[in-house]
Amino acid sequence: MVQTDEKLVEQEQTPVFDEVEADSRSTFDLNSYLKQQKILVEQALDSSLPINQPAKIYEAMRYSLLAGGKRLRPILCLATCELTGGSNEMAIPTACALEMIHTMSLIHDDLPAMDNDDYRRGKLTNHKVYGEDIAILAGDGLLAYAFEYVATQTKNVPAERIVKVIARLGRTVGAEGLVGGQVLDLESEGKSDISAETLTFIHTHKTGALLEASVVSGAILSGASEEDLARLSKYAQNIGLAFQIIDDILDITATDEQLGKTAGKDLQAQKATYPSLWGIEKSQHQAEKLINEAIAQLKPYGNKAKPLEAIARFIVTRNN
Amino acid sequence: MVQTDEKLVEQEQTPVFDEVEADSRSTFDLNSYLKQQKILVEQALDSSLPINQPAKIYEAMRYSLLAGGKRLRPILCLATCELTGGSNEMAIPTACALEMIHTMSLIHDDLPAMDNDDYRRGKLTNHKVYGEDIAILAGDGLLAYAFEYVATQTKNVPAERIVKVIARLGRTVGAEGLVGGQVLDLESEGKSDISAETLTFIHTHKTGALLEASVVSGAILSGASEEDLARLSKYAQNIGLAFQIIDDILDITATDEQLGKTAGKDLQAQKATYPSLWGIEKSQHQAEKLINEAIAQLKPYGNKAKPLEAIARFIVTRNN
Repeated sequence: MVQTDEKLVEQEQTPVFDEVEADSRSTFDLNSYLKQQKILVEQALDSSLPINQPAKIYEAMRYSLLAGGKRLRPILCLATCELTGGSNEMAIPTACALEMIHTMSLIHDDLPAMDNDDYRRGKLTNHKVYGEDIAILAGDGLLAYAFEYVATQTKNVPAERIVKVIARLGRTVGAEGLVGGQVLDLESEGKSDISAETLTFIHTHKTGALLEASVVSGAILSGASEEDLARLSKYAQNIGLAFQIIDDILDITATDEQLGKTAGKDLQAQKATYPSLWGIEKSQHQAEKLINEAIAQLKPYGNKAKPLEAIARFIVTRNN
Repeated sequence: MVQTDEKLVEQEQTPVFDEVEADSRSTFDLNSYLKQQKILVEQALDSSLPINQPAKIYEAMRYSLLAGGKRLRPILCLATCELTGGSNEMAIPTACALEMIHTMSLIHDDLPAMDNDDYRRGKLTNHKVYGEDIAILAGDGLLAYAFEYVATQTKNVPAERIVKVIARLGRTVGAEGLVGGQVLDLESEGKSDISAETLTFIHTHKTGALLEASVVSGAILSGASEEDLARLSKYAQNIGLAFQIIDDILDITATDEQLGKTAGKDLQAQKATYPSLWGIEKSQHQAEKLINEAIAQLKPYGNKAKPLEAIARFIVTRNN
């Protein structure tokens, strides 16, 4: 009886995996793959940041870093490193750094001076637990540690490639990436006349840049060719934009419980979104088109690209 | 008449240089050296960060990065690189990165959720001009850009050394450095029973770590020996702590105008300082002792170490 209940709960939480499997034209088991890679990433993240003195800051950093989530960025990094001939061992420090950077951007975006969010991934946001001062510092600490971690922990990779990855991560976070996207997002708030171009600038910087860096850094670490990097960049740009379009749709159609955060916030804040520009149906159609183009980039890799293909399909069919 | 007035103003602003010259046992002209190196650093900083889109974030980053200051960290980096056989060309990107990191820490420390300062270097603080959201992002942008800049702009240095410098910079900013020091500083505020040990932990992390990284990174870039790195670390640790002791003294004895920020803030905030623990006289004596020990580390380098020696003396005799 207890077992049945637990199974029911599990099914309710992960219907998207079943849907993806049913929908997929391959026999690749994305559900198992994501589960296995997520365990690998969670373990690596947990051991990446032991508590030291002053304990409060390490606890605050760990609170958000280990708060769950799909771990999509690290998983993408590991997948492209393997696809292009590298190993998990080469990519795992960068995979962790990508999640540190992602976590830092969430902590700072949630601050009262920014998006002022109380919940994230179903838990209180960092500043609600530790205070604004510690939340700002936890973000700073995670960002700095991301670079330190790549520099000190990457093994069996020539130093030239490590420098390239660090350059890419830096560009991805700064004014040309996450930070620039967030600034334009803040400037656009409450404006009803945002164009699709501006919206796309925001998202290619705010969400797309880090997804692209996740994909590309895995390939840089393995020593992939310029042609491979170009293909994988295109793949990443497309899934990044599709990811955001689906995010916008889910903000309208999903529940708070499904999202682990407050749904309907975009509408309430009168934020320009793809559904507000195009409607839900056209937005869904655009996301699917982007995903098909992303998958087309993977053709030369054959069956080896099954994980990346399945992840792309997962992005348009997910419900959280 | 105009010329005389200008000269008078200049003399009033830089009495410390005359004092240092009179006091110094060498014929090394620190005033000219600092002036010349500062021009070099200012030019490099100015061209390091051209304005792009969205302009507001670049303007905010430039506002604080180019707000003046002694540029002590970049100058130390250039000096140790040269001392250990390297060139300005090798060190200038790291020198700029050190100032980007220092600026980021000032912007975030000044935020209302932290020290809540309205003025810095005689100008309004970043959040007073651009708002809290942009100030947080400007800090994030500068921090990320520091790593990117070292990774992309460092020329004629083997990649292994660049990776080492990046690892050092990361450690210096994170929970083991600036961030950790700031956390303990915030926790200690308003407490009257802070020990000298806690105070020293705060300052070796909050101020000392970045000064040490400035000195050590210059030497890493030139390929200095472990023995050189150890000597220069000791030099840097001592001048870092002396710098903070003098900062604490100046908060009591200097005017707002001399400091370019509100004087007497430590007393008002009931912050534990070295003068509050030891009194002004013993604090001054301790600072001088640290500086003498720092200078002793430079003995093997002979006249080549004159700049570092003069900078150490300058730290205890400065009045801003």
